Amino acid sequence: MEFEESGIGEECGVFGCVSAGEWPTQLEVAQILTLGLVALQHRGQESAGIVTSTGTNPPIYTTLKGMGLVNTAFKAEDLLKLRNGNLGIGHTRYSTTGISELQNCQPFVVDTLHGKIAVAHNGELVNASALRKKVMRHGVGLSTSSDSELITQLLALTPPMEELDTPDWVARIKNLMTETPTSYSLLVVYKDVIYAVRDPYGNRPLSIGRLGKSCMWPVCFVYCVCFYFSIIRYYREVQPGEIVQISKNGVKSLSVVPRPEGDPPAFCIFEYVYFARPDSIFEGQMVYTVRQRCGRQLAIEAPTDADVVSTVPESATPAALGYAQQSGLPYVEVLCKNRYVGRTFIQPNTRLRQLGVAKKFGALTDNFAGKRVVLIDDSIVRGNTISPIIKLLKEAGATEVHIRVASPPIRFPCYMGINIPTKEELIANRPEFEDIAGYIGATSVRYLSVEGLVSAVQGGIESRGKDERISTKTARIGHCTACLTGKYPVELEW
Amino acid sequence: MEFEESGIGEECGVFGCVSAGEWPTQLEVAQILTLGLVALQHRGQESAGIVTSTGTNPPIYTTLKGMGLVNTAFKAEDLLKLRNGNLGIGHTRYSTTGISELQNCQPFVVDTLHGKIAVAHNGELVNASALRKKVMRHGVGLSTSSDSELITQLLALTPPMEELDTPDWVARIKNLMTETPTSYSLLVVYKDVIYAVRDPYGNRPLSIGRLGKSCMWPVCFVYCVCFYFSIIRYYREVQPGEIVQISKNGVKSLSVVPRPEGDPPAFCIFEYVYFARPDSIFEGQMVYTVRQRCGRQLAIEAPTDADVVSTVPESATPAALGYAQQSGLPYVEVLCKNRYVGRTFIQPNTRLRQLGVAKKFGALTDNFAGKRVVLIDDSIVRGNTISPIIKLLKEAGATEVHIRVASPPIRFPCYMGINIPTKEELIANRPEFEDIAGYIGATSVRYLSVEGLVSAVQGGIESRGKDERISTKTARIGHCTACLTGKYPVELEW
Amino acid sequence: MEFEESGIGEECGVFGCVSAGEWPTQLEVAQILTLGLVALQHRGQESAGIVTSTGTNPPIYTTLKGMGLVNTAFKAEDLLKLRNGNLGIGHTRYSTTGISELQNCQPFVVDTLHGKIAVAHNGELVNASALRKKVMRHGVGLSTSSDSELITQLLALTPPMEELDTPDWVARIKNLMTETPTSYSLLVVYKDVIYAVRDPYGNRPLSIGRLGKSCMWPVCFVYCVCFYFSIIRYYREVQPGEIVQISKNGVKSLSVVPRPEGDPPAFCIFEYVYFARPDSIFEGQMVYTVRQRCGRQLAIEAPTDADVVSTVPESATPAALGYAQQSGLPYVEVLCKNRYVGRTFIQPNTRLRQLGVAKKFGALTDNFAGKRVVLIDDSIVRGNTISPIIKLLKEAGATEVHIRVASPPIRFPCYMGINIPTKEELIANRPEFEDIAGYIGATSVRYLSVEGLVSAVQGGIESRGKDERISTKTARIGHCTACLTGKYPVELEW
Amino acid sequence: MEFEESGIGEECGVFGCVSAGEWPTQLEVAQILTLGLVALQHRGQESAGIVTSTGTNPPIYTTLKGMGLVNTAFKAEDLLKLRNGNLGIGHTRYSTTGISELQNCQPFVVDTLHGKIAVAHNGELVNASALRKKVMRHGVGLSTSSDSELITQLLALTPPMEELDTPDWVARIKNLMTETPTSYSLLVVYKDVIYAVRDPYGNRPLSIGRLGKSCMWPVCFVYCVCFYFSIIRYYREVQPGEIVQISKNGVKSLSVVPRPEGDPPAFCIFEYVYFARPDSIFEGQMVYTVRQRCGRQLAIEAPTDADVVSTVPESATPAALGYAQQSGLPYVEVLCKNRYVGRTFIQPNTRLRQLGVAKKFGALTDNFAGKRVVLIDDSIVRGNTISPIIKLLKEAGATEVHIRVASPPIRFPCYMGINIPTKEELIANRPEFEDIAGYIGATSVRYLSVEGLVSAVQGGIESRGKDERISTKTARIGHCTACLTGKYPVELEW
Repeated sequence: MEFEESGIGEECGVFGCVSAGEWPTQLEVAQILTLGLVALQHRGQESAGIVTSTGTNPPIYTTLKGMGLVNTAFKAEDLLKLRNGNLGIGHTRYSTTGISELQNCQPFVVDTLHGKIAVAHNGELVNASALRKKVMRHGVGLSTSSDSELITQLLALTPPMEELDTPDWVARIKNLMTETPTSYSLLVVYKDVIYAVRDPYGNRPLSIGRLGKSCMWPVCFVYCVCFYFSIIRYYREVQPGEIVQISKNGVKSLSVVPRPEGDPPAFCIFEYVYFARPDSIFEGQMVYTVRQRCGRQLAIEAPTDADVVSTVPESATPAALGYAQQSGLPYVEVLCKNRYVGRTFIQPNTRLRQLGVAKKFGALTDNFAGKRVVLIDDSIVRGNTISPIIKLLKEAGATEVHIRVASPPIRFPCYMGINIPTKEELIANRPEFEDIAGYIGATSVRYLSVEGLVSAVQGGIESRGKDERISTKTARIGHCTACLTGKYPVELEW
Repeated sequence: MEFEESGIGEECGVFGCVSAGEWPTQLEVAQILTLGLVALQHRGQESAGIVTSTGTNPPIYTTLKGMGLVNTAFKAEDLLKLRNGNLGIGHTRYSTTGISELQNCQPFVVDTLHGKIAVAHNGELVNASALRKKVMRHGVGLSTSSDSELITQLLALTPPMEELDTPDWVARIKNLMTETPTSYSLLVVYKDVIYAVRDPYGNRPLSIGRLGKSCMWPVCFVYCVCFYFSIIRYYREVQPGEIVQISKNGVKSLSVVPRPEGDPPAFCIFEYVYFARPDSIFEGQMVYTVRQRCGRQLAIEAPTDADVVSTVPESATPAALGYAQQSGLPYVEVLCKNRYVGRTFIQPNTRLRQLGVAKKFGALTDNFAGKRVVLIDDSIVRGNTISPIIKLLKEAGATEVHIRVASPPIRFPCYMGINIPTKEELIANRPEFEDIAGYIGATSVRYLSVEGLVSAVQGGIESRGKDERISTKTARIGHCTACLTGKYPVELEW
Repeated sequence: MEFEESGIGEECGVFGCVSAGEWPTQLEVAQILTLGLVALQHRGQESAGIVTSTGTNPPIYTTLKGMGLVNTAFKAEDLLKLRNGNLGIGHTRYSTTGISELQNCQPFVVDTLHGKIAVAHNGELVNASALRKKVMRHGVGLSTSSDSELITQLLALTPPMEELDTPDWVARIKNLMTETPTSYSLLVVYKDVIYAVRDPYGNRPLSIGRLGKSCMWPVCFVYCVCFYFSIIRYYREVQPGEIVQISKNGVKSLSVVPRPEGDPPAFCIFEYVYFARPDSIFEGQMVYTVRQRCGRQLAIEAPTDADVVSTVPESATPAALGYAQQSGLPYVEVLCKNRYVGRTFIQPNTRLRQLGVAKKFGALTDNFAGKRVVLIDDSIVRGNTISPIIKLLKEAGATEVHIRVASPPIRFPCYMGINIPTKEELIANRPEFEDIAGYIGATSVRYLSVEGLVSAVQGGIESRGKDERISTKTARIGHCTACLTGKYPVELEW
Repeated sequence: MEFEESGIGEECGVFGCVSAGEWPTQLEVAQILTLGLVALQHRGQESAGIVTSTGTNPPIYTTLKGMGLVNTAFKAEDLLKLRNGNLGIGHTRYSTTGISELQNCQPFVVDTLHGKIAVAHNGELVNASALRKKVMRHGVGLSTSSDSELITQLLALTPPMEELDTPDWVARIKNLMTETPTSYSLLVVYKDVIYAVRDPYGNRPLSIGRLGKSCMWPVCFVYCVCFYFSIIRYYREVQPGEIVQISKNGVKSLSVVPRPEGDPPAFCIFEYVYFARPDSIFEGQMVYTVRQRCGRQLAIEAPTDADVVSTVPESATPAALGYAQQSGLPYVEVLCKNRYVGRTFIQPNTRLRQLGVAKKFGALTDNFAGKRVVLIDDSIVRGNTISPIIKLLKEAGATEVHIRVASPPIRFPCYMGINIPTKEELIANRPEFEDIAGYIGATSVRYLSVEGLVSAVQGGIESRGKDERISTKTARIGHCTACLTGKYPVELEW
């Protein structure tokens, strides 16, 4: 629950779709891209963009961008502008607001010596600063602070500079991948092809789904997107370092750029903990199930003498059900959500301040009055969300409220695409967290350990080790836990 | 779930607040009214309105109205307009859209011979047509089709017509109550007083809460509103037929207008089934608990040979947990909700049509693949919401999907404030519902019986029969089940 | 020019249109009403409204209202809502802003014992206060402070109260006219008829035009509206006190309610001076020509030893051309207008303040550098508009700037529909106006006399005395000059 | 008049302002930039943008951009974002609509090896296509089709590529000017300096004004902008090919890049005819006066046997007054404008179509009924604006309507920044224009000759030949008449 309030968020979602012949039609391509962005809305609410290509020679690209949620950014009539597109990519952006920021909205379309390309990416280049200097030294002016523009200019200035009918974009992408090891999942449109690219460390997710029984191949960011349309089926993940070509002729793996010898993959563990939709599949396992395992592990690490187990809806619910199963305590609901409460404009004074959070929830008194409650949350970031909830439960009759957090505290910043406060701002480093239970008013507080989290995540992969969907190349398991441990997958340049 | 999609809805929410001395301050009165309307948002999304009174002599009334959700209708700076109000009432409206409808937005403020009054109500006058004719025969022109305007004109034209310093509004309200038996819960502001009025049949809910430890008395529509601010505490329900005066001097019961001898009360049973927030308290029992009992009753009436029980989130969850407890089957989640999916603007063709509903949900495959699922929903209205969900579950591996509905089918129109289709349109009366399981693709379908629903509702009241909060006057129990049975609490005039 | 800045304005514009058979079609009726309101936009920018009637039995009325200019208030698709209207009326309102004021937006539609009527009016009832008390004593609550609602309730409560197929609306209108002598021009829609009503003093204008050669009869407020569509032709004015019925069968004069014996008519002289469009025709003469005569008269009353005559564009231009013709001085343009300057949001400090007005104009230096300029303006209200213009001209090289004002100073408030400041606020009564030339920085300042204005207005009527369009009933000439002289046409009740 | 309707327009307006010490303050810099853009609004209504710089080392740039008119694009609170700017530039853009076009909105800010620069320009590079290819061959991707981006990349990639504290921007600008001869007026911000640059042919205007008596130096596009604030005074034009540095230390001419030997300057003659505000000063003469001379010349070339001369307001008025003076015929107004008529949303059918234009005007019948009218317009582009005006005048009583056009027909496209239809689309090339009088319903039609226009323009310059404001370098006179004659100032590359 606190994650939702914390401002911690992933920077983007990307989605692509190719039509193969009669279905989907061109207008449906635009509709599927839009629905895909709605499904990725949780990964970015600042702006949304779609670029389609006719796939002809020369191709005609059409761009649609807008600020806000997909349904705000686009209107039904806008989709008609895209109706000549045989393929396309879309992007939702998470960032600060302001209409002047529309220029940062992806996908970027740039005209190069070899024709136009469209680029959308998720992630953050760890060596962006050095790469910007390099590009500018070549005489290029950069009009935004966006990594996407940097990626497009890096792709554009790769030699040789000749006007070619068939420029070697794969060589250019491989060159880009040698210049920057992580973190990006990238979609590039050129004429009638989408290149789907995942960085060598596999830090950001990227999966491919199959639409219907035909040979169309949407690329998408997370499995749920493919599957959430009941007619779209999970096909496979793009492997770390892999470049996949998707066109009306199907999916073709073109190349795998390796990591430095000895380096494990570094898939972001917070995709499992918070960012991904619970129905997503990564590394052969469903995110919901991983979260349930985290709850079970938490029950083992931090057992509680209590009467009922409950959740701060909705993100902590799988962990709460896991905790209940492991502990044998009954699972009940103690809070009901007011689905209409958004960010209200009221700036209350001290007396009204706690209403600001508590108004989100009503207490289901009968379910816990006179009882000792274990309340599972997915995180405690600032403590100001959970605190009024505990007060609400106690005033409504809970005799004890034990907080059990289904993830370890975040202690270090992320430089790979997740918006986390700087080290100094991180609440887990603050004095008041030394006596966190006292600070938030809980009877007790316990966190899941880093080891517990890793075992909950990797346990499911090992048990599915022979799953043919996990290729031998990625059989070595590894996850990025930098924000919990300070151990970054690559050395950071400053 | 289907209720949410069905267009069935209650017509309004009302909320009031009085300041007593220093707290809440005048600006806080406006803020509390706004927060109260947000909490009642689920009862009406078309428009919102607030009227405050200075409570001075003469009073100054200030009105704020807008179309859409509360957060859209009002802006932070608008609240400043209300900042001289010592008391006030607010209203959320459920109806058709269109800015020209702003004139129908409540509360209504009218200038009368005795000064200005402000009126907000929830419900629908069963004899509105006859009352309109009566008022017009007196020479009054009616500018809207709203019952609220009718109520204000009825209050205004009650003799005697003299300019009085202290007009007898209570006599006028009692006169109104004799002219129309049901259905209304009414708030009337005059100078420094709010009159809270519930019709003799008690068809619509109306409760009073206490804000903090001071002597302030917000009136509100449903208990949850009082309690959902953790600092607001449930005080009591306004009894059927009761007129309560609320001012800075406290709460005072002024009169109880009786029903015709022999008539039981007729509180709308659908408040329990669907309209009210689950944390609301009516007749001494929490709505969530009633819904759980409905689930238990359903398990008794319609047991199933299956592996897991689940819910169509979120409204059916208490019933699903009840069903699981009663049946002994494990409760799991099978669907995850995409919280950003609203009414999208895409008008899909046949091939895309089912995405329209299914995109709301992702399937949590691991929890049910290879299993027989009992899926609890709160209703089946048109069948077009549940049908793609069943398809989604089956394609994701459920071997059987048994639908159990935690309420009886709606078969008759409501004339007391609930927006239900006409009898001919009602789906439960349609031929395709004869083989409903085949129609929606389920393995089997069973409904809760009317008797089962009534016993689930009334069982909880009887067990609390000695609760001092239930006065002897209302100890006789009765509920309106007209939409299920066609038995209306009063004879309808046509 | 200063009028435009002064906040002095007429309160409304009204317009009506009836289709007769094939033309205009129903959709065209809506379009013509909209175009008519655009043409009346200068009479009210706060809100706009249209009501159409099918003209069937029973009629269906459709209402469209919105805040702001016509083009803001309505959208193209909104007009489709009106497309079943065979006749209708529209209204533009001049007043304070705020969306909550939409309820004051005309036309008013009310349901009465005899069916629905729609009413739009321009003007202000001089005895509104007494009439409101009378209506409320009858038991009617008034929901707005608008005279229009008052008029509709007065029409509704006129006895006899019987349900009649053909209620006598004309008797009710005549009854209304005996209750209130002035000031109103009124359009009433009932089923398939528009009643066009002008008060007995003829204080507000109301004219009828003919659309094409067919038998359709739009009613409109001022002649220009009829004529400004080249296909609409001036037909005649509605006479003071006259009730005219307009339907698809044509125009029919039903009655003329007389003034008290001895009272002259009191047509607002400021319609000539400022409010009306220059192409309007009143009392047989074109407004532009009257304004030119005012300029000529001003040249006679206030001759100037100067080199060129010019105008503060655009409203003073006819008077400036008249002054030039009479004086023999050459007419030149000295100011050019920036057509994009609206009310900018910049709130300048003292140093930037004068830009606020001056930015509207550029100086056409070559036309006056080194010359003595006579600058004609239509009024001086506060002096803060003309002052920076004089400064601009002097800095750009004018050796002298003589201000000649083509109307007398306003010294008294209006109680008949014109928004004029109270007597205390009126600038002409302020000390700084004693040495007005010094105050605004002009070389000299002279006003047109009241007698000069009256002769300029009435001279044109007398010379056309035999025009058959001026019926004998209105041959007696009289104008309301209350704001200049304090002589009101009727005794004011307080 | 027809120009206004024709879609012919200049592509942009640019404006700059530097603060020198205490005045203007930083907030006032933002306000003056905004007011400057309002004054340039007629040169572009699609979007508006402002960039300010703190002028510190390193500088902080702040950008504000929005779609639509300045007052729509910016809000009062937006200006606060700019309040730390000591200098800045602004831009109004004329182009197609669509929020996705915000990326084309100027000024462009780019980060280069030498720090950030902000660029705004007016005009169109004649060899843009070749320059784009050159830039892309260097490996630069171009994200827009805008010449401004091209200019910034050209400035960025000029060698040498070293990180310098004081990069030689003037050398880079001179290099740019050798690569592209025309057409551009350019403002470049770097740290605390604005460079104002006009192309060697002087095709687009650029002038400097002085704000108050202090040493502040706003740069602006056209003289009127400087002067229209009465406190801003005309200082001088930027000469063709000149680079001027403007800072808080004053104005300094840095360099003049010459034209190829023998080439005359080529200032756009349509600035005089239509684009510039009438109070602008170019080449030492006021635009209004030039337009008056065009009217006089037209009276010599195309005399008419008529009774009165009039104008289609407002752009043709100076020419009409000139025609009246030269011909001795009296000048009268025949049309009054409805100031509220904008682009209405009504799409009339054939019967209503002519209202679409005619609703803009009312006929001042008394001034011309029974008379022969000479009507001066500034152009005839499609004939569909003037045609209903002629009909209106004739129906209102004009016996003859002679159209005299104060400019020659446009026959060729412009490639230097003016949006003119392609040659095939140009109406003057169409068959119906062979009998233009018959086509539009006029008694006769005559145009000003190209020679007449050139002599009207250049006559004023010669007579002021010794004006010290015209330096010897630009004493040679020359204007671009390409759209009238097809003779372009430089050879066009395709």
